[in-house]
Amino acid sequence: MNTLITNIGELVTNDEQPGREGGLLGIVRDAAVLVEHGVVTWVGPSADAAAQVPASGAEIVDVGGRAVIPGFVDSHTHLVFGGDRAEEFAARMAGRRYEAGGIRSTVAATRAATDDELRARLAGFVAELHAQGTTTFEIKSGYGLSVADEERLVRLAREVTPEVTFLGAHVVPFEFREDPRFDGDPVAAGDAYVEVVVGEMLDACAPHSRWVDAFCERGAFTPAQSRRVLEAGRAAGLGVRVHGNQLGEGEGVRLAVELGAASVDHCTFLSDADVTALASSDTVATLLPGVEFSTRQPYPDARRLIDAGVTVALASDCNPGSSFTSSMPFCIAVAVRDMGMTPAEAVWASTAGGALALRRDDVGALRPGLRGDLAVLDAPSHVHLAYRPGVPLIASTWAGGARVA
Amino acid sequence: MNTLITNIGELVTNDEQPGREGGLLGIVRDAAVLVEHGVVTWVGPSADAAAQVPASGAEIVDVGGRAVIPGFVDSHTHLVFGGDRAEEFAARMAGRRYEAGGIRSTVAATRAATDDELRARLAGFVAELHAQGTTTFEIKSGYGLSVADEERLVRLAREVTPEVTFLGAHVVPFEFREDPRFDGDPVAAGDAYVEVVVGEMLDACAPHSRWVDAFCERGAFTPAQSRRVLEAGRAAGLGVRVHGNQLGEGEGVRLAVELGAASVDHCTFLSDADVTALASSDTVATLLPGVEFSTRQPYPDARRLIDAGVTVALASDCNPGSSFTSSMPFCIAVAVRDMGMTPAEAVWASTAGGALALRRDDVGALRPGLRGDLAVLDAPSHVHLAYRPGVPLIASTWAGGARVA
Repeated sequence: MNTLITNIGELVTNDEQPGREGGLLGIVRDAAVLVEHGVVTWVGPSADAAAQVPASGAEIVDVGGRAVIPGFVDSHTHLVFGGDRAEEFAARMAGRRYEAGGIRSTVAATRAATDDELRARLAGFVAELHAQGTTTFEIKSGYGLSVADEERLVRLAREVTPEVTFLGAHVVPFEFREDPRFDGDPVAAGDAYVEVVVGEMLDACAPHSRWVDAFCERGAFTPAQSRRVLEAGRAAGLGVRVHGNQLGEGEGVRLAVELGAASVDHCTFLSDADVTALASSDTVATLLPGVEFSTRQPYPDARRLIDAGVTVALASDCNPGSSFTSSMPFCIAVAVRDMGMTPAEAVWASTAGGALALRRDDVGALRPGLRGDLAVLDAPSHVHLAYRPGVPLIASTWAGGARVA
Repeated sequence: MNTLITNIGELVTNDEQPGREGGLLGIVRDAAVLVEHGVVTWVGPSADAAAQVPASGAEIVDVGGRAVIPGFVDSHTHLVFGGDRAEEFAARMAGRRYEAGGIRSTVAATRAATDDELRARLAGFVAELHAQGTTTFEIKSGYGLSVADEERLVRLAREVTPEVTFLGAHVVPFEFREDPRFDGDPVAAGDAYVEVVVGEMLDACAPHSRWVDAFCERGAFTPAQSRRVLEAGRAAGLGVRVHGNQLGEGEGVRLAVELGAASVDHCTFLSDADVTALASSDTVATLLPGVEFSTRQPYPDARRLIDAGVTVALASDCNPGSSFTSSMPFCIAVAVRDMGMTPAEAVWASTAGGALALRRDDVGALRPGLRGDLAVLDAPSHVHLAYRPGVPLIASTWAGGARVA
C-alpha cells in the first residue's frame, strides 16, 4: 500500500538542508510526501508529486494546504495502570504537596485489575495518543512492584509498543516499607527491594523490555540503589534511562551521563556541572512540562539547556499521579510559554528530540528511508501548536502511511 | 424530537439542592436527563429514566457512565476576523511585549476579506467550539473599525449567535491615529473616532447587536471615551460589557459597576476598592486565562475575587492576537493551576458563570425549563477537565437536545 500526502502548505521534515527554512525543522512549502510500504520514499514539491506515484498506484490524500509534521515521539509515559487519582489531584490543587508516595494507591488499583481490564484501558490510551498526533510512544512499568505484576505490565505494554521500559525501581513498595524487619529505615527497605528488582524481577521483565529505568530521587531510590538497578539492567542487555533531578538537585543526571543513558528525564533542578555534563554527552535531557503544570512546581529551564548545547526532548510523562496529560501539543504550548523554548524548538524536541531520547533513527523526521509517520494539523503552520493552546489541532494521524486517527 | 441522555456517572447540574454533592455544582450520580423539544423536562436517577419517556418517544443515548456537564458558555470571543498573527506570536515568545496596537494587522486582513471568506472562517470556529463542548458563545466586532466593516462583522456574527457585541471601541483605527489633524495626539484622535462610534456606527450596528463594549485601557480608550461609548450603547438599548484592568490598574472596573455592566472582562490588575465594588454589584468578573497564557502576563487572582464574594466567569477571549485558544477545558486547567480556583469553581465559572455574564437564565445549568445544552466527557468526573490538561475530553456535545459534535 502506498500513500501520497499532497498539497501540504508547510511540511516540517526535521531534515535541515540548504534552501530550506526553519533551521533544524527543514521546512518545505507546498510539499508532498510519498510513503511506500510504510516507508517515506520521496519528499518534494506538490507540483512534482504526481510523477512520483509508482506503477502500483497510491492513495492520494490532499490536505488542502494544512501543515504536516512528523508524528510525535513521546519518549516517557506510564500507561499501564488501574484507577485514577482525580481526588488526590483536586486536593493538591487545594494546597497539598506532590510526593512520590502517592503512587501507592495506583499500585493497589493496578494489582487488582485483570489483564483484560488493563488492556482495555491501554487500548483507550493508544487511541487517545493517535488522536493527538503521537505515533511512537514509550511505556514504563512501575505500578506492579512485584515480580508477577511487573512482568504483567511490561508484557501488556509490549503488545502495543516496542519501546517498553522496565521500571521496577519506581518506588519502594509498601510491603517493604512497612516490613518490621527494616524498622522504618527506608534505605534498608529499598536495599532489600532492589535485590528483588535486580534478580527475579529483572529476569522476568527483561524479555519484554528494551529499556531499564530508575527513579533516582528523595523518597524513591538512592543514587547507589539506582546505579545497581541500572547496571543490572544494562548487563541484561537493556538500554538505560533515568528519572532524575525532579524534586531537587541530586545525582540523577551525573549517573545517567556516566552510564551512557539514552535520556535523563525531568531535569527540573540542575547544577551548572549537570548542564556541562549533559552538553558533552549524548544523553538527551527529556523535559516533562505536564508534571510541573500538574504539581505546581517550577518549570525546568529549557533555554539554559539549549543554549549550553544539550539535546532536549519533550515528553508527556502521562501517568495518573503527577501528569495525566497525553497531549504533546499541550506540552509544546507550556514549554513555549514557561520554559523559554521557541515554537520551532518545542516541535523539534517533541519529534526528533523524542526519537534521539529513544535512540531511534527511523522516526522523528520525514525523509526517504524513515517511517511514514506524520500528523496533519488543522492549521497552516507548526507555530499554531503553541499559538492555539488546548485546541485539538490534529486533523489526522498516519503511521507507516496508514491512517490511525 | 426528544432525547434521553442516560447512564451518566456524574451529572453536573449547577442546581444546588439538598442531598446533592459539590455545592454549587449540584452533582447527581447515576443520572439521566430528558430533553423534549430542546428543553430539559426531567433530571433524575438513571433507574427512573425509562418511565419518564413521553408517549411520543425519545432517542435514548447511553453515555456509559461518563460525566456530563452543562454546555460551556463562552461569554467573550472575537471570532470574525481575517488572517492570523502566528508570526507576531512567535516573535512575542522570543521576547517582544504584547501591545494593543498589534490589532492593526488583523483589521487590515479583516477589511480585505469578503463576507463569504469571513463566514467560512466563522463556520470553522463554530464547529471548533462545538467540538470542545461550547454551546453558547458571544462574539464581538472590533476588527472592522469603520461604519461599513463594523456593521458587516456584527451582521455576520448574528448569523451564528444571538450574543453579539458591538465593539467599535476596540482600538482607535490607524486612519485616525495617523491623521495629521490630530498631530500625533492619541486622545484627540480617539475623541474624533468616538464621535463616529456613538453616531453612524452605533446606528448601523445596534440592530444586529445585544451588547455594547469598550476597551478601557492604556493604548485603547480613556475612561471618558469608554463611558461615552457605553452610555450611547445603553441609550440605544444595548446591554453593557467592559474590557478593563488588563494591562494595569485603571477605571474599567469602576466604570463597569457604575454603569451596571453585565460583566467586566480581564480584571488582571485590581485594587482593593475594585474588588469591593465588584462584590457589592451584580457585575460579573470575567477572567480570560488564555490571554495571560499567550502574552506571558501575570494571571488574575480568581481566589481573591471568589473569597471576596465576587461572581467569577471564565471565557476564552478567542482572538488572533492575545489568546487564540477556543478551548474552555484549557481555560479551566490554567485557572486551576495558576489562578487559585478549584476544579469545581472553574467548571461552574465556565458554565453558570458565563451564563450570568451574559444575563442568560436559560443556559449554564441543567434543570427543568432550561435548554438541553450539554457536553458528555470522555471521563468519569468534571475534575478531569483540569486533571487531564490539553487532552480532548469532549465525547459529544448537544445543543437543545440535538447532537452538534
